[in-house]
Amino acid sequence: MNAKVFINAQIATMTPSSPYGLIPNGAIAVLNGKIDWVGSSSALPMKYQIWEQEDVNQRLITPALIDCHTHLIYGGNRAQEFEMRLQGASYEDIALAGGGVVSTVQQTRNLSEDQLVQTALPRLDHFIAEGVTTLEIKSGYGLTIDDELKMLRAARRLQTLRPIRIKTTFLGAHAVPQEYKGNADAYLDEICLPALTQAAKEGLVDAVDAFCETIGFSPAQVQRVFALSKELNLPVKIHAEQLSDQKGAILAASFHALSADHLEYLSLDGIEAMKASQTVAVLLPGAFYTLRETQLPPIDGLRKNGVPMAIASDSNPGSSPLTSLLLCLNMACTLFRMTPEEALTGVTRHGAQALGLSDKIGTLETGKIADLAIWNVEHPNELAYRIGYNPLIKRIYGDA
Amino acid sequence: MNAKVFINAQIATMTPSSPYGLIPNGAIAVLNGKIDWVGSSSALPMKYQIWEQEDVNQRLITPALIDCHTHLIYGGNRAQEFEMRLQGASYEDIALAGGGVVSTVQQTRNLSEDQLVQTALPRLDHFIAEGVTTLEIKSGYGLTIDDELKMLRAARRLQTLRPIRIKTTFLGAHAVPQEYKGNADAYLDEICLPALTQAAKEGLVDAVDAFCETIGFSPAQVQRVFALSKELNLPVKIHAEQLSDQKGAILAASFHALSADHLEYLSLDGIEAMKASQTVAVLLPGAFYTLRETQLPPIDGLRKNGVPMAIASDSNPGSSPLTSLLLCLNMACTLFRMTPEEALTGVTRHGAQALGLSDKIGTLETGKIADLAIWNVEHPNELAYRIGYNPLIKRIYGDA
Ligand SMILES: [Zn+2]
Ligand SMILES: [Zn+2]
Repeated sequence: MNAKVFINAQIATMTPSSPYGLIPNGAIAVLNGKIDWVGSSSALPMKYQIWEQEDVNQRLITPALIDCHTHLIYGGNRAQEFEMRLQGASYEDIALAGGGVVSTVQQTRNLSEDQLVQTALPRLDHFIAEGVTTLEIKSGYGLTIDDELKMLRAARRLQTLRPIRIKTTFLGAHAVPQEYKGNADAYLDEICLPALTQAAKEGLVDAVDAFCETIGFSPAQVQRVFALSKELNLPVKIHAEQLSDQKGAILAASFHALSADHLEYLSLDGIEAMKASQTVAVLLPGAFYTLRETQLPPIDGLRKNGVPMAIASDSNPGSSPLTSLLLCLNMACTLFRMTPEEALTGVTRHGAQALGLSDKIGTLETGKIADLAIWNVEHPNELAYRIGYNPLIKRIYGDA
Repeated sequence: MNAKVFINAQIATMTPSSPYGLIPNGAIAVLNGKIDWVGSSSALPMKYQIWEQEDVNQRLITPALIDCHTHLIYGGNRAQEFEMRLQGASYEDIALAGGGVVSTVQQTRNLSEDQLVQTALPRLDHFIAEGVTTLEIKSGYGLTIDDELKMLRAARRLQTLRPIRIKTTFLGAHAVPQEYKGNADAYLDEICLPALTQAAKEGLVDAVDAFCETIGFSPAQVQRVFALSKELNLPVKIHAEQLSDQKGAILAASFHALSADHLEYLSLDGIEAMKASQTVAVLLPGAFYTLRETQLPPIDGLRKNGVPMAIASDSNPGSSPLTSLLLCLNMACTLFRMTPEEALTGVTRHGAQALGLSDKIGTLETGKIADLAIWNVEHPNELAYRIGYNPLIKRIYGDA
C-alpha cells in the first residue's frame, strides 16, 4: 500500500464548480496512485491524518497536463526549409530542394522504430519537464502499411521508457503520398484502410484521425475511414476547418467524434453539430502562430454554445515545431483571447475529454488517477501569463 | 593556467565572413577564459595539441547568448491584470483594481534590495539555462531616488550570485510616477536627474535609457536626460518609435547612442540617422507578440542600410513576461521575417555591439572572452526553428 497526503496546498481541482475549482488551503490523499480524498485541510478526515504527509508550503497543485494532439514521432526536422523560406525561397524552390511534408515522410520512412523512439525522446522530455503525464501521438508520416505501424509501435514504446501515458492515433489519412499523387481513393484502398485494420488487430490504435481539407482528404474519403473505424469499434477525431470550411466537424460529429481539431473556419452549423455530439474543439495556437494565420477559431461561438475547448501543441516538424504546452496556454490567451482558466481547462479537464479519458484524469476528484503537477506560482493564472518560463516543482504520475 | 581545446566541433563563430561564420570541423583553444585560437581542426597549431581536450562530437558551438534589453528586476507580477483583460475588463477597470505599470512600481518600491534579487533569480536562471552569459537590466520601476538605486544595486548583485555578466542601465525616465502626474519636467528635476547623478557617482550605471513616447517622455525631456549622461560620460540608448514616430531614434543617434529599441514606427530618416551613428536597432518581438501589434519594424530598410539588428527579450511583467531568449529568435523569424542567421547574430555579435562590448564578446575570435554555448543541434538554423525547446548541452562563462 502506497499512501500519502499532500497538505498545505492551494489546489486547482479544475472541476467546473468554481473558478479553477480552487481550494485555497487544501489537502489531497493519494492511495496506490488514485485520489482517495481531496478537500479543505480543515475537513481532512481523521483516517488520513496518520498517513505520510508532504507539506506543499502553499504551492499550487493542478491536475498534471494533457496534450491531446501531437505528431511527436517523425524523422529529421524542417529547419532548412524554415530558413529557406525566410531567405525568400518560394514553395517551388522548397519542393525542388526536397522540402515540405514529403521530406518528413521520406525521413520517417528512413528511420527504424528504434531511431524514431530515440529522436522523439528529447522532445517528449520537454513535455514531461512541464508537468505533462498524458500525450497523444498520431501516425501519418509513414503512409505505407509498414511505416504507419512502425510509427504507432514507436509511440507505444515511449511509455515503457518514461513515466508517461501515451494515446496513439492512427492518421493514415494525413497526406496522399507521392506514389499515389492524384489518386487518394486508391491510397485509401491499398494502404490506409488495410493499415488501419492491421494496426487495430495488433492493438496499436486508441483512436482514428483524418485530415479533411482540399489539400488533404475530401469529406467522402474521410467518411470511408470513419466507417471502417466504426466497424473496428475505434473512436474518431478529425483535422477540420483549418484552411477552409469543408464541414468536416459536422461529418465527425455524426460519428460522435471525440474531437474536431484546428477549426479556424468552423461555422455555426459545425458548432451546433459539435455541441449535440459533445465533440471537443481542440484548438492549436502553435500552428496558428507558425503559419501566421489571421482567421481566428470561433472562440465566442464555441464558448456560448458550451462546446468544450481543449488546447494542444500540435507538435510537428512543419507547422508547429513546438515542445512547450505551457507556451500554448499563453498563445491560447494572447492569440485566441481565451481566458487563463479556459486555457488551463483545455490542457486538463477538456484535454482528458478529447482523449475519452474523462473518467480517469483531467480533474482532481476522488477516484481519479493521481496525476498531479505542483507549481511554484501564487495563482493558476500565472501558468498562462508567463512566456517561456517553467515553474514546475514536481510532477506525480499516478500510473507509475 | 587554465588551458583547454574543444575539438571536433561545428563552430558558428558569428563573424560576418560567411553564413554564421561557420567552421564545419573546428577547434577552439581557450586560455584563462579567453579564446587563444579558433579555426579548422586540420589547422590546429602543434602547441595546442598537448592541451587538455574536450571532444564535442560534432555538436555546435556558438558564442554564448546576449540579452541586451531586459527589465528583469521588479516586484510582483501582472498575471491578475492579464486575466482581467481576457475576461473583458477595460483599462479603467484594471486601473481601478490597481493594475498597470503603477502596480509594478508600487510592488517594486515595497520590496527590499534583497527581495528584488531573490525574485529575479528564478527568471535569470531560465536565461542562463538557455546559454545566456550577458544580460542587460534596466531600472525604471522605482521612480524615486532610493528605489532607482535599489534596483541598480539588485541588478549588480545578481552577478555575484550566478556566473553571469550584468550590464546595468539607468531608466529613471521610464514613466512619470503618480506623484508627478502631468509634471514630467519636475520629476526629471527632482528625481530622475539627481538619481542618475547619484547612481553614476556610485558606479552603478553602465548606460542610460529613456522611454520616448507620447505616453512617456517627449524628445525635449529625453534630451535633458541624454545631456546629463553626456556630462557623466555615460553612453545612451532609447525606447523609441514603439507606438508612434517621435523621431526618438534621430535624437539618440545625435548622441551616438549604443542602440535604439522597439522601432516599429521608425521611418527612413531615423534609419539613416542610425546608420550614420552606427546605432544598433534592438528589436523586441516578445512585446510585439504580447501587445498583438500589427505594425512591423522596418526590417527591410534596416537590412538594406546595414543598420545592425539585435534581438532581445524585453523581459518585463507587463508587455513581455518572457524569459526565453531562444523563443525570441523564433519570434524574430516568425513575426518579423528575419532570417535565422540574422536572429542569431542579433543575440550574439549585434547584441554585444548594443552593449558596447564588441571588443570582448559576441563572436568567437582570438582575443575575445571565451563565452561559449554548446548545442545538441545539427545546424545553427535549428536554434531559431524550434519553439519552446532548449538544446543547450553546456554553457561556458569566460569570466568565471
Ligand atoms: Zn495535427
Ligand atoms: Zn523595454
